[in-house]
Amino acid sequence: MERADIAIIGTGPAGVSAAITAKVRNKKTILFGSNNLSEKVSKAQEILNYPGLPSLSGTDFSMKLKGHMDDMGISAIEKKVSAVYPMGDYFGIQASDEMYEAKSVIIATGVIHGKPFSGEKEFLGKGVSYCATCDAALYKGKITAVIGYNEEAQQEAKFLTEFAKKVYYFPIGNKKLELDENIELITEFPKAISGNDKVECLITDKNKYEIDGVFILRDAVAPDQLVSGLDIADNHVEVNLMMETNIRGLFACGDIAGKPYQYVKAAGQGNVAALSAVSYLNEIK
Amino acid sequence: MERADIAIIGTGPAGVSAAITAKVRNKKTILFGSNNLSEKVSKAQEILNYPGLPSLSGTDFSMKLKGHMDDMGISAIEKKVSAVYPMGDYFGIQASDEMYEAKSVIIATGVIHGKPFSGEKEFLGKGVSYCATCDAALYKGKITAVIGYNEEAQQEAKFLTEFAKKVYYFPIGNKKLELDENIELITEFPKAISGNDKVECLITDKNKYEIDGVFILRDAVAPDQLVSGLDIADNHVEVNLMMETNIRGLFACGDIAGKPYQYVKAAGQGNVAALSAVSYLNEIK
Repeated sequence: MERADIAIIGTGPAGVSAAITAKVRNKKTILFGSNNLSEKVSKAQEILNYPGLPSLSGTDFSMKLKGHMDDMGISAIEKKVSAVYPMGDYFGIQASDEMYEAKSVIIATGVIHGKPFSGEKEFLGKGVSYCATCDAALYKGKITAVIGYNEEAQQEAKFLTEFAKKVYYFPIGNKKLELDENIELITEFPKAISGNDKVECLITDKNKYEIDGVFILRDAVAPDQLVSGLDIADNHVEVNLMMETNIRGLFACGDIAGKPYQYVKAAGQGNVAALSAVSYLNEIK
Repeated sequence: MERADIAIIGTGPAGVSAAITAKVRNKKTILFGSNNLSEKVSKAQEILNYPGLPSLSGTDFSMKLKGHMDDMGISAIEKKVSAVYPMGDYFGIQASDEMYEAKSVIIATGVIHGKPFSGEKEFLGKGVSYCATCDAALYKGKITAVIGYNEEAQQEAKFLTEFAKKVYYFPIGNKKLELDENIELITEFPKAISGNDKVECLITDKNKYEIDGVFILRDAVAPDQLVSGLDIADNHVEVNLMMETNIRGLFACGDIAGKPYQYVKAAGQGNVAALSAVSYLNEIK
């Protein structure tokens, strides 16, 4: 696979804006996310302060962004990025079961609401995983749990049943549930992950489940899990006015780069991140 | 006159965005600029990367912004701001011949292209002025020059003839000229302003004119002339990610806050500046 100039992760207003500006600047770009764009944006009731588009619904705003992408021939690769590896002069990008390469990366994955579960960080890679597609095969004949935040998580849980002997599914939020029959739905709230050297137990508000592994499938991976060594402050990626992070060639924009959580701020930062990536590409040429 | 919560200076995408968000947040806001918005924006040939508004002309983009302002009942005070005075818990704003007051100020005046004329800074207040409406009366019976960058400058020159015995007019750029008959048009390029304690002479690429004062009427006043003590770097106001300057209660956004000079970046920063001003207002309450 040919190495891209810019990989953009996320299809909210920041990622879409970055993709549009990267396209205007003729850069070979890959965009990871959803072609339905951000679910969070679509659900916004009314957007009053995106200059030039007075009072519109989240759905209408999403359609405007999508129309702009279509106009420019931009589409998203519908895979979830679980890790970005800085390799010196390029980045490796793990997206579901495939590895992509890009000279620069823009993170626009949005903000993660809520804290990690107790034990989540401690057992990451020791029974805690963010990607069933990547790690399901490690749980052949084992007991697993999925903490699922979205419909995609249900698909991942289904895939997991091809390997694991048992899959518990803990839904978060009021999503439409259409689970495979050999997945056991548990409507309890997960509290903690425990064990000794590796995950042994998932504790909810009501019970305790013995498991070998747990897949936590959120809309986005926390930025410090996504890229090892990335400077984080207050749950946000640290950036300067040019949207540069502490890692050269890696940029962040939108909600993940800090408050306020506003559409036009995100779009503005996406534009800046793309132009900063273009400058970086010129420097390393 | 009642003290405003927020004064916004400039009606490009940054200023308009700030005004829209300030309105959404119910702040008593005054906006200085033009109800035709930014002349520079209107003249943009094609804007490709303002997300949600694919491929449109500068005129169309200006009309979209204007439509948004109209929708929300926002209009600009069409006066040029020549100075902002930090007064502790509020700011005094000199706009043409009037003084306004606001608890916080957002500067969105756009970037000044080109360097100041030789002698300009040295003789500021000693024969160099940025506002004929303010200072014309000081030149009763004197010889003056106007270096005019826009059509508004021609109106100011006309006003100046009511006081000065002589007004030379040096046009910059290819603007439509409709000068009063008692103004002498000189199509030479001003190079330097000289004198001893005060202005005595304007030197062009071809001649030397003895004058008592010179009015330099650009689209915007340089930020360090606008607000004394404001931290400037590379001709831009220094800001952080929240668009705060070194002066508490004073914010900057858009081109004047640094590159890249992009519409959506400006609009995003305007939004952030307005929300930072709202936070500041809550703090000082």
